Amino acid sequence: MSRDNLRWWGWGTLDQTYDLSERPGFWPFLSEELGLTGEERGPQADLDRITLPASRLSPDDLDALTAIVGAEHLSAEHKARVTHAVGKSYPDLMRLRLGQIEHAPDVVVWPGSEEEVAALLALAVRRHWSVIPFGGGSSVTGGLTALGEWPAISLDLARLNQVLAVDPISHTVTAQAGILGPALEQALNVEGFTLGHFPQSFEFSTLGGWIATRAAGQQSIRYGKIEDMVEWLRMVTPQGVIETRHVPASAAGPSLKEMLVGSEGAFGVITQATMRLRPLPTLRDTRGLLFRSFADGVAAIRAMMQSDRPPAMARLSDVAETRAYQALSPARHGRAARLTRTIGTRLMKRRGIELHGACLMILGCEGDEQSVPEDMDAALTVCAAQGAFHLGRSPGEAWYAERFALPYLRDVLLDHGVLVDTLETATTWDNLLPLYQAVGQAIAEAIEAEGVKPLVMCHVSHAYTDGASLYYTFLARQVAGREIAQWELIKRRATETIMQHGGTLSHHHGVGSDHRPWLEREHGPLGVAALRALKHTFDPYGVMNPGKLLEQGP
Amino acid sequence: MSRDNLRWWGWGTLDQTYDLSERPGFWPFLSEELGLTGEERGPQADLDRITLPASRLSPDDLDALTAIVGAEHLSAEHKARVTHAVGKSYPDLMRLRLGQIEHAPDVVVWPGSEEEVAALLALAVRRHWSVIPFGGGSSVTGGLTALGEWPAISLDLARLNQVLAVDPISHTVTAQAGILGPALEQALNVEGFTLGHFPQSFEFSTLGGWIATRAAGQQSIRYGKIEDMVEWLRMVTPQGVIETRHVPASAAGPSLKEMLVGSEGAFGVITQATMRLRPLPTLRDTRGLLFRSFADGVAAIRAMMQSDRPPAMARLSDVAETRAYQALSPARHGRAARLTRTIGTRLMKRRGIELHGACLMILGCEGDEQSVPEDMDAALTVCAAQGAFHLGRSPGEAWYAERFALPYLRDVLLDHGVLVDTLETATTWDNLLPLYQAVGQAIAEAIEAEGVKPLVMCHVSHAYTDGASLYYTFLARQVAGREIAQWELIKRRATETIMQHGGTLSHHHGVGSDHRPWLEREHGPLGVAALRALKHTFDPYGVMNPGKLLEQGP
Repeated sequence: MSRDNLRWWGWGTLDQTYDLSERPGFWPFLSEELGLTGEERGPQADLDRITLPASRLSPDDLDALTAIVGAEHLSAEHKARVTHAVGKSYPDLMRLRLGQIEHAPDVVVWPGSEEEVAALLALAVRRHWSVIPFGGGSSVTGGLTALGEWPAISLDLARLNQVLAVDPISHTVTAQAGILGPALEQALNVEGFTLGHFPQSFEFSTLGGWIATRAAGQQSIRYGKIEDMVEWLRMVTPQGVIETRHVPASAAGPSLKEMLVGSEGAFGVITQATMRLRPLPTLRDTRGLLFRSFADGVAAIRAMMQSDRPPAMARLSDVAETRAYQALSPARHGRAARLTRTIGTRLMKRRGIELHGACLMILGCEGDEQSVPEDMDAALTVCAAQGAFHLGRSPGEAWYAERFALPYLRDVLLDHGVLVDTLETATTWDNLLPLYQAVGQAIAEAIEAEGVKPLVMCHVSHAYTDGASLYYTFLARQVAGREIAQWELIKRRATETIMQHGGTLSHHHGVGSDHRPWLEREHGPLGVAALRALKHTFDPYGVMNPGKLLEQGP
Repeated sequence: MSRDNLRWWGWGTLDQTYDLSERPGFWPFLSEELGLTGEERGPQADLDRITLPASRLSPDDLDALTAIVGAEHLSAEHKARVTHAVGKSYPDLMRLRLGQIEHAPDVVVWPGSEEEVAALLALAVRRHWSVIPFGGGSSVTGGLTALGEWPAISLDLARLNQVLAVDPISHTVTAQAGILGPALEQALNVEGFTLGHFPQSFEFSTLGGWIATRAAGQQSIRYGKIEDMVEWLRMVTPQGVIETRHVPASAAGPSLKEMLVGSEGAFGVITQATMRLRPLPTLRDTRGLLFRSFADGVAAIRAMMQSDRPPAMARLSDVAETRAYQALSPARHGRAARLTRTIGTRLMKRRGIELHGACLMILGCEGDEQSVPEDMDAALTVCAAQGAFHLGRSPGEAWYAERFALPYLRDVLLDHGVLVDTLETATTWDNLLPLYQAVGQAIAEAIEAEGVKPLVMCHVSHAYTDGASLYYTFLARQVAGREIAQWELIKRRATETIMQHGGTLSHHHGVGSDHRPWLEREHGPLGVAALRALKHTFDPYGVMNPGKLLEQGP
C-alpha cells in the first residue's frame, strides 16, 4: 500500500534516475536539435505549492467510507489526493510541476476485498459520488482525472494484489486485479511460467490496469496483446458482479469479455482475471540491425510477420530515433572500441548504409534452446533480404537491459524545460508509411507553430500479419507559461491526422479523457451509442470514472 | 441464386451421396450398437406434403418489396419458403420429413446491394415485419426459424457474393458476406493466399454466416477461429450502417468488432468483411495415430498446444468414434492388405494398444517444405511420449479426402429411421475429461430414457493453450411419432450438463433458438442485459431475427 518510495512527481522509484553523465553525446545532440541554450529550467514540483480543490466530502461521508474499508485504508490527506489526481502523461506531470491540479479525488480508499469494492460502489450510487479505479497510476491518457461535479473517490486496488491460483494443467493464472507486474511475474516464474506481458510501465502498472486499457507488452508478437491473454475476468459494477464464462473459446453470441476488456473503469472495477500463460523461456536472444531506410525495415517486419516463424519482438526506429539512440550511447573508450566502430562504419558503407541515415531494429526471439536459434536464423534471413546490416547482440542486450529505464529520462528533460511526450496508433501495412509521414509531419508542424524546433521520432513495435503500431516520441523546448497549451495543440493535430489517415485512436494506451473527443471518429455514432448502452447497463447512475472513454453521464 | 442442385431436404448437392455399399462393416456395426432390425424406415421428405402457414403478406406488401429488389429477386413460392424455413439440424430436417413446418418466412428476397438491404430493413420497421438473414442455410441451432407473430422476410445474401479486394501487402481480403466458401477460397488461392477456414459446412456456408455464428474450421489451430480472422466488418442495422475501424489492433475502448461478431442476425445484416489471410500452404501432411486411451490422446494435444510448435490440426476421437470410423472403412481386399493389418495389430498389441479400445488421432501440419517436416516431427515426438502408435499417412489422407463428406451420411441414416445429431462445447484442459464423461453419460441416459440403445461418440478438435472443444455425435433408433420430442430431451439434458459442468453453450455453432434458453447460464443476468442493450441500440423495434440469440422483443 505504501507508495512512499515512488517519485510522486515523475516516474518510478526514488533510488533510480537516468544518469546522463555517462552519455556525453546526448545534451549536445539535443541542444542542436531543439536549439537549447543549456540554461533552460522547467518548473519544479513542490508538494506544498500544489493547491487542491477543497474536499467535497462531509465527516459523515468519510465515516460511511471508513465503515467499509477501515480507518487505515482511507486517506483524504494532501499527498494521497495529489498522487491519485494524475497519471504519467506530460500534461499530468506538468500540472504537478505547475501546481495546477484542477481536478482531484476527494478521498482515496484501499478496499481489501471484492465485497468492499461492491459496498463502495453502492455507497457512491446512494450519495452521488463518482468512483475512479486506480491501479498503478501510469495512465498516459488522462484516465484518472476526477472529472464531473460530484465528489470523487479514488478506488486504489493496491491491496487486491494476490495470486489466487496457478493452473499447471490449463497453463493459466488467476490473480486479483491490483497485482503489479513484478509480483505477478515472480509468482509465475517460480512455477516455470510467464505471462509475457512487459509494457514499459511493467514495474508500476497492474493486471487490472492492463486489461482495462488493452495494454500491449514489448514481446506482444509472441505473447499477444493483453486481450489475447485474458481467459476470464470478473468485474464489480454498480449493477452487480459480472463475470465471463471460464472457457478457452466460445460461440455463445457476441463476446462479453471483449466488452469488458478496455472499459477503462467506466463500466465497473475489474477485480480478478484468469490469464493464459506460456512456459518461461529458457533462452532469449536479442540483436541489433541497421536498415538503409525506414521503408526497408518496415518491409522486413512485414515479411517476418507474414512468415511461419515470426520473432518475439521487432522494434524498428526511424532515422531520428536511431540518431537519438546513438546520442544516448554510453561513452566507449579505448582503441579496440574505436577500431570496431571504424570497421563497422566501413562495412556498413560498403553495404550502402550511412550511419546517420540508418534505421535501427531491435530483434528478439525467445523460447527454448532449439526454437530460438531457428527463429533467429529465420528472422535474420528475412532482414538480410531487405539489406540489413547485422550489428550483433550488444545493441540488443543494451536495449533489453534498459527496456524499462527510458521513462526516467523524461523527468530529467522536464527539469531542463523540455517538453517530451509519446503517442501511438496502429494501421494496416498498406497504410503504414503514409500514416507515418502524415503524423510525424503534423506533430512537427504543431511544435513549430509555437515557434520552437521539433524533434519527432517514431518506431514500429507491435506487429501483426496485417499491420503494425507506430509509436511517436516528440520533444521541444517548453514555451514558458504555455506548457500545457503547447502540448494540447500537438496532441490535437496529431490525433486529427491519425483519424484522417486511417489509424486507430490508440493501439495500447487507451482512450481516457485525452482521446475521448475522437471516439466517434473511431467507432461512428452508432458504435458510440453501443458503448453508451453498455455503460448504461452496468452503470445507470453514471458513477464510474466519468468523462473517461465516454462523455459524462450514464 | 439457384439452389436447384441442392438437396433441399438434406445435405449438399444432388449429385453426391454417401455410398455405404463400399463400406460393408458399417450397417452390421450400427445394427449391433443400436439394436436395428434393418427394417426401419424413417419418414421421407415430400415437398408437396409439406404445408406451410399461409403468407401474411398482402399484394401491396409484395409490391413494396418488389420495388426494392425487383420481381426476379423475390419469391413467395412454396419451395423457396420451405428451403428458407429451416437449417440443417436434426429437428429441422425432421420437420421437413414430417411435413411439420410450423414457422416459415412469408417471402424470400435476394437483395443485390447494401442499399437494398438497408431499404428492406427500413420497410420491415415501417410494416412490422421480422427479417431473417440467410447465408448458406446450414445453421444447426435453429438460427433460421421464423419465430414471432410478425410476417417474416428471409433475406438471402446469395447475390452479395463478390470478392471486392485482395490486398497482397496487408494480406487481407475484403468480400461481400454472401460469398460461399469455395468461391472465396478459389479467388484467394489464385493470388497465393488462403483464409484457412474449413468448417465441415465449408462448401455450403458463407463468409457472413461464419462471422455471425463465430464458426471454427478444421485447421483452427493454425488459422484461428473466424473471430481471429476478422479485421473489419460492416453491418446494416435498422438504425443505420455500422462499421468497425479498419486496423490490425486497437485500444480504443471495448471491441466493437467483437460485439458484432456472433450477433447471429439479431443486430443487423453483416454485408462485408475484411479477413486476414495466410499464404496458401505448399505442403500438407496428415497422419493417423492410435492412443491407448482418450486421456493419453488429450494429454498429447495439450502438450502440443502448450509447445512452441503446435500442428495445424489435431482431432482425437474417443473409443466409440474410433470404432465407428473403423466400421466406416472401405473394404480392403487382397493378401497384402490382410498381412499389413495383421502385422499392424501385432505391433500395436506389443505397445499395449488394443484395436478395439484405442483412440484415433488425425494430426495435420501445413505450411511450406521447410516448416511442415519440422512441425510434424515435433508433433509426432510429443505423441510418441504419450505412447501413440503411428499409423502413417493413409488414415490421415483418407480423413482429409472425406472431410466434407460425413454430413451426407446423415440423410442415409434418417432414411433408415436413425436419429443422428451432433453438439459441441469447449472447456479448459483441467475440466476436459470430467466434462467429456458427464456430457456423454447425459446423452446416453437421455436416449435410454426413451427405451432405445444409444451410440454416443466424441472427438476433441479445436484446441488452445488453455483448453479445447468437445464435439459429440449421437445416434439412436428413432421413436416413431416422437422423433422431435426424442431429440429435444437429449438436447435439453446435454445442454444442462454442459452448463452445470463448466462448458460453454457452444464453441462454434452459435446460440440460435435452440440454445437461447441457456444464454443466461452462460453470461449471467447482467451479461444478457448487456447483449439486450446492444440489441436495443441496433434494432430498437425488434425486427432482426427474433428469438435467436436473445428472447423476442427489442
